[in-house]
Amino acid sequence: MKAIGFKKSLHIDEADSFIEFEKEIPTAEGRDILVKIEAISVNPVDYKIRKNSLKDTQQDIPKVIGWDAIGTVEATGDEVTLFKKGDRVYYAGDLTRDGSNQEFQIVDERIVGMAPKNISIEQAAAMPLTSLTAYEILFDRLQLNKEKDKDKTILIIGGAGGVGSVGIQLAKKVLGLSVIATASREVTAEWCLKMGADHLVNHQDLVSEVKKIGFEQVDFIVDFVNLNEYWDAIVELIKPQGKIGSISDPTGPVPLNQLKKKSAAFYWELMFTRAMFQTEDMIAQHHILNQISQLLDEGILQPTMNTTLDGFTAENMKAAHRLLESGKSVGKLVVKF
Amino acid sequence: MKAIGFKKSLHIDEADSFIEFEKEIPTAEGRDILVKIEAISVNPVDYKIRKNSLKDTQQDIPKVIGWDAIGTVEATGDEVTLFKKGDRVYYAGDLTRDGSNQEFQIVDERIVGMAPKNISIEQAAAMPLTSLTAYEILFDRLQLNKEKDKDKTILIIGGAGGVGSVGIQLAKKVLGLSVIATASREVTAEWCLKMGADHLVNHQDLVSEVKKIGFEQVDFIVDFVNLNEYWDAIVELIKPQGKIGSISDPTGPVPLNQLKKKSAAFYWELMFTRAMFQTEDMIAQHHILNQISQLLDEGILQPTMNTTLDGFTAENMKAAHRLLESGKSVGKLVVKF
Repeated sequence: MKAIGFKKSLHIDEADSFIEFEKEIPTAEGRDILVKIEAISVNPVDYKIRKNSLKDTQQDIPKVIGWDAIGTVEATGDEVTLFKKGDRVYYAGDLTRDGSNQEFQIVDERIVGMAPKNISIEQAAAMPLTSLTAYEILFDRLQLNKEKDKDKTILIIGGAGGVGSVGIQLAKKVLGLSVIATASREVTAEWCLKMGADHLVNHQDLVSEVKKIGFEQVDFIVDFVNLNEYWDAIVELIKPQGKIGSISDPTGPVPLNQLKKKSAAFYWELMFTRAMFQTEDMIAQHHILNQISQLLDEGILQPTMNTTLDGFTAENMKAAHRLLESGKSVGKLVVKF
Repeated sequence: MKAIGFKKSLHIDEADSFIEFEKEIPTAEGRDILVKIEAISVNPVDYKIRKNSLKDTQQDIPKVIGWDAIGTVEATGDEVTLFKKGDRVYYAGDLTRDGSNQEFQIVDERIVGMAPKNISIEQAAAMPLTSLTAYEILFDRLQLNKEKDKDKTILIIGGAGGVGSVGIQLAKKVLGLSVIATASREVTAEWCLKMGADHLVNHQDLVSEVKKIGFEQVDFIVDFVNLNEYWDAIVELIKPQGKIGSISDPTGPVPLNQLKKKSAAFYWELMFTRAMFQTEDMIAQHHILNQISQLLDEGILQPTMNTTLDGFTAENMKAAHRLLESGKSVGKLVVKF
């Protein structure tokens, strides 16, 4: 089968930043299923790993990354109970195993969901990683729920990115929160409104932007951009006993003590934690993905895909990473096989 | 009435580190009640404020601190609904108002509870601040509950202090957790076992101490001593998706990013947050104190008082602070009026 990977961390414009190569189709054992991939999407984690994981070393067999795929089940391990051959499934996968930049992939059934049926394959391919991340941070980490939190206010830092796009929708349409999203360009502002944001603020001078639209403080803040950069604003804007979540890549220590006076809570979300540590509750991701499928099929959530590249080629993988690395992409980018 | 305070932050051995003086009895208005105090207890927050709040300045009227009292209601403001004259009440109070080192005090009824009936006045005086802190961190911050958390494991850093003594009991007797407490001297170890700890560990080399007794990781960690000092151990010992709480006085920034891989949560607890910010739910402290009274009266919680000084004098206040500042006290110290 065909796979695309890299032997060394290279600038995306270099010839070998992505290489097409042949690989054996793996065998599904235990709780693994073998999936024939039909489309994938790219996420910031992809280029971060491409640029950093093989910086100081080189490997003979190219490293296969990519953590978003849709496809059909080709074979099942002997302990598989959730899926059968022919099911169309979607998933983000496991950071500790090969990714989805290949024609066939094995993945643990507990982190796989039934794909949505009423949206296109490309649209569905864009959803798993961002939906799992946005769902986990709001429901599993901050433990928000409609009963007790309806009409409370959430500030979403980074509304137009992949996770922000699903985050705004879940916060607004499923939890009934009042949603303030940061969006600083016209195209991102329009996108956030389309996702359901109630208020938009510029990320620069965030504190006065939020106060200007009538909020002294907010109940919840989730950061999808840069925790260190927004720390001071977060400390000022969070309500006493408020909840703060982040998925961003920390660039240094933070003065956590500044939150003590308010008895505030801080939650990390990493979508890979459950699979990486094989937590007892890792099957939660199966249930979350099924729920996301249902919300998409019922039209409650709208797809966040914005760009499709046709054909699983090294050139398309380069184009995909190049766009994502520019930081200018809005919504999600999908590569159709 | 008599009050005891200080005009300047002084070493406890200096003559004027505490001064007795006369003060007008205040009037209860609104939701405030006026309490005739019968006994108080001291907490680390007392000497921290005595030592630091008037370091660079001096005031004419002595500053009155102290946040633990039991007494009887003498008068009620016109909006008071929870208490009537003659009720015996106990409370920790509000950091932004005068404390309980005086014969009469006004306090908002929403942070006051009915005193326990089956234990002594001195024993009851020792409970409010530490019980509120321990209860809030376990139930309101980490959101632990018996149904879902029974038999999970909590590591309590600082088991023999005031908050630790109640924390061990609530974790063990009310939540049904398996409790590991740090205690490094014979007297503190005995005390922690008396409070209900299942396992004791030395605070030095905490990681290997915990592993030695058979735990690779723990579900919850609460720090009542020093977050910076134990940070590395906390990062290593917490389970993926685990919960960490702290009440300690932070000495510097922390590398919060180290918890991201595990998607762990961090909670601050400051007992004064609710009153300080007049949060909508500040009446929660009334309910918590009533529940603590019931648990004490039913013999489920045992009192944590260990030392009583007889007489509300500057000499006794000095003795109380001196003992607390030594860091060697076990359980709680009470001054009886």
